Amino acid sequence: MSIRVTVWGENVHDQRHQLVKDIYPRGMHSCIAEALNTVPGIKARTVTLQDHEHGLTEQVLDETDVLTWWGHAAHGEVRDDIAARVADRVLKGMGLIVLHSGHHSKVFKRLMGHNCDLLWREAGEKERLWTVNPGHPIAQGIPAHFELAHEEMYGEPFGIPEPDELVFISWFQGGEVFRSGATWRRGAGKVFYFRPGHETYPTYHDATVKKVIANAVAWAKPECRFGWGCPNVPADKALEPLTVHGGSVH
Amino acid sequence: MSIRVTVWGENVHDQRHQLVKDIYPRGMHSCIAEALNTVPGIKARTVTLQDHEHGLTEQVLDETDVLTWWGHAAHGEVRDDIAARVADRVLKGMGLIVLHSGHHSKVFKRLMGHNCDLLWREAGEKERLWTVNPGHPIAQGIPAHFELAHEEMYGEPFGIPEPDELVFISWFQGGEVFRSGATWRRGAGKVFYFRPGHETYPTYHDATVKKVIANAVAWAKPECRFGWGCPNVPADKALEPLTVHGGSVH
Amino acid sequence: MSIRVTVWGENVHDQRHQLVKDIYPRGMHSCIAEALNTVPGIKARTVTLQDHEHGLTEQVLDETDVLTWWGHAAHGEVRDDIAARVADRVLKGMGLIVLHSGHHSKVFKRLMGHNCDLLWREAGEKERLWTVNPGHPIAQGIPAHFELAHEEMYGEPFGIPEPDELVFISWFQGGEVFRSGATWRRGAGKVFYFRPGHETYPTYHDATVKKVIANAVAWAKPECRFGWGCPNVPADKALEPLTVHGGSVH
Amino acid sequence: MSIRVTVWGENVHDQRHQLVKDIYPRGMHSCIAEALNTVPGIKARTVTLQDHEHGLTEQVLDETDVLTWWGHAAHGEVRDDIAARVADRVLKGMGLIVLHSGHHSKVFKRLMGHNCDLLWREAGEKERLWTVNPGHPIAQGIPAHFELAHEEMYGEPFGIPEPDELVFISWFQGGEVFRSGATWRRGAGKVFYFRPGHETYPTYHDATVKKVIANAVAWAKPECRFGWGCPNVPADKALEPLTVHGGSVH
Repeated sequence: MSIRVTVWGENVHDQRHQLVKDIYPRGMHSCIAEALNTVPGIKARTVTLQDHEHGLTEQVLDETDVLTWWGHAAHGEVRDDIAARVADRVLKGMGLIVLHSGHHSKVFKRLMGHNCDLLWREAGEKERLWTVNPGHPIAQGIPAHFELAHEEMYGEPFGIPEPDELVFISWFQGGEVFRSGATWRRGAGKVFYFRPGHETYPTYHDATVKKVIANAVAWAKPECRFGWGCPNVPADKALEPLTVHGGSVH
Repeated sequence: MSIRVTVWGENVHDQRHQLVKDIYPRGMHSCIAEALNTVPGIKARTVTLQDHEHGLTEQVLDETDVLTWWGHAAHGEVRDDIAARVADRVLKGMGLIVLHSGHHSKVFKRLMGHNCDLLWREAGEKERLWTVNPGHPIAQGIPAHFELAHEEMYGEPFGIPEPDELVFISWFQGGEVFRSGATWRRGAGKVFYFRPGHETYPTYHDATVKKVIANAVAWAKPECRFGWGCPNVPADKALEPLTVHGGSVH
Repeated sequence: MSIRVTVWGENVHDQRHQLVKDIYPRGMHSCIAEALNTVPGIKARTVTLQDHEHGLTEQVLDETDVLTWWGHAAHGEVRDDIAARVADRVLKGMGLIVLHSGHHSKVFKRLMGHNCDLLWREAGEKERLWTVNPGHPIAQGIPAHFELAHEEMYGEPFGIPEPDELVFISWFQGGEVFRSGATWRRGAGKVFYFRPGHETYPTYHDATVKKVIANAVAWAKPECRFGWGCPNVPADKALEPLTVHGGSVH
Repeated sequence: MSIRVTVWGENVHDQRHQLVKDIYPRGMHSCIAEALNTVPGIKARTVTLQDHEHGLTEQVLDETDVLTWWGHAAHGEVRDDIAARVADRVLKGMGLIVLHSGHHSKVFKRLMGHNCDLLWREAGEKERLWTVNPGHPIAQGIPAHFELAHEEMYGEPFGIPEPDELVFISWFQGGEVFRSGATWRRGAGKVFYFRPGHETYPTYHDATVKKVIANAVAWAKPECRFGWGCPNVPADKALEPLTVHGGSVH
């Protein structure tokens, strides 16, 4: 069965700015989904902020194995209950790929327990990504290093918990470095942050970037859907015999 | 200079139930603070949920190096903005010690990015904690294993991110195990979760438990106060010379 | 293509002691391999300490995706160069599943950089394993907890580096706990340690134990074969233009 | 009581090459020890490869809280038993600071369980180190970034296990990046790797480099000396009552 991907797009710059429209005529989300749909075993669709419940209804999430998230201008417009719903789905097993300025999305900050702050500069400088974990599934088919001629700079310190695995580090022409590809398990779900993707450069048309995202989707595919909870195990159902001691305020 | 500890107490069971009053006549928070105040180099005070801003005003937090948190019955009554304020302070360097049922507090769940769910049973059974990381600062002076004659059971799976370091694992008489002492760095701050401490047993009168909490306070003391942010580094201030390419939507 | 598993057996107790022969008439390694060979997509063979180069020739390793290792009585008889060869293969991508008393094997200690010490008791007591990471690939199809009626006890502290992911924790009837299922990435390879499997109990006939090992094999399958090295990048081949400064002792 | 530091120097280039003598007239180890001895609370001495047992007798190690290690030309001349002795001391609590080309030392490779391979170029290019973990003890008093005008380049992939905490990442003028400051716990001991320090540049005269090493020494100071082992716990000494089942081959 195919991996069912939902590509979430904020779709604000894409609608508002000719510069972005020229690069992504059908929106950034469409470009990402179209690339994923060329990969055998992946079936991607798009939803946007403007859709009912931002396109992230319970039904859509029921049918989503991996969600990708790009946002920038309108993080604050995402409803808190929808962000909580998405984060809860990740804990239950759904994969999440957070792209570029999605670092400041409610969903990512919530799952990281962090501010996800960073330095930045918009100068269209050269970015070179180095593969630091060549055996990682997300690095398969990706060269030892690859370049994007023009990108926004993100610099350290990046306000994230120590990644479970660091996959890429970026070198920037202007002198900075950045942890550009990093993974975390959250509950039964997997999260991958991937840095490139500023709206004014054709990053999502780059073949290596597309390959990284497709690899990440395959890596983040759920193993299961795990329902958390806080079940009480009564004393008379304990696995070993127990005599109850003490009182209770319940 | 002393480590300034603020012991936060929910102070609900302590007020409402004679059973708890009998064990902790001045409240659980007072018992914890009194124990800490016997340790040279630690100066602890208490605040409670019922205080103005739950006792966690900006001024109190300015004067707090390490915060300890016990709550159970009234997690929902903690204001969201105060929980966010406390979590932000941790990212900036304040230490946080989360005790027992504080696992479901807004502050802990927020910093973990997780549901912090678990199994539980209130039967006053025996708990034996094993030190699995004997070189860790929090384990110093703590034996290879120690027992609490009567405690509530918490069982796995515990809904937390993989700890940075696991310090204690509990064995329960009824047949369960639990990751009872675990650490995480969050930003410039350190977080320690410590399982024991059910309100109906005299756990915070136990000398080894007191020693663990004092060790954790010393370990969680801030190295610095780090102010995060998202500063822009203009192209003409870049560390290496840059020529700007491309446009911007800003 | 099938995952090619080589099951390494020390094959000393199996030959020497009737007690072990009664449980594993064709050796423990054969029992493990036979179980794996019932799983679609896995093709397992056995080699033993007594074989030429302990059965771990370069050619055998060329044809091995995942190696499982059980040893106890004769760790010292494994040649250092063969242990180094196996560890090197793991760094290059080969998966490794270390079973029970393999904790003290040269290969495991070498890859951990640790002594891998632990407590132990041979009393045929009850062991109950708890799944603490229910979303992990190795935990799929494994219940929340499962029991082995009679096993050797291993207790903490276990002398290992902090695992990348902890999957199982054991509860022992005699009062101990143990980190019984743990994973580490080493280079391009993955390592899983799984505790149960004392030679005098029929542990490898247990269906859940077999399932864990099969899951671990699928999880440890290499993504790639990565050849490490220390290549020099001459100044005139640098990615950015450089002027050489300073001298050299080379 | 002061932290007792033993600065280990390979002392080969320092003796053989005028270029190195000009920068470090009394050897690189003396330069490092002299800097540490200016720090209140640290008392450093030097030993070298050429000393009896490389200067690392049991008695010297008994009196060592933290060992620093610089080697390059003569890793192979370090006796295996001495490397094993040092690694064992780390597991028991001794701190270890591995400097620059010490990445390929027997001691570091042994503790990492890894090849510690990397790319390299000797061109005297600019290195800029970024602090990615500003709340870490080793980063205290270190700026957000600092530069070394002329250094050897080390590039990724660096053949190490995922660090417990990453503290510094380097940007190189020639286009590479490197994980230049990283920590690992090994047993009761702490290990810090710090990249800068090529013998033909005056790196250990740099004030920020000196400060990093001093911070690392303070961080790596042992909490305790923990004696590992594999003790048997007889059934009749179990913490919970046990009836022995099954036989034994012992």
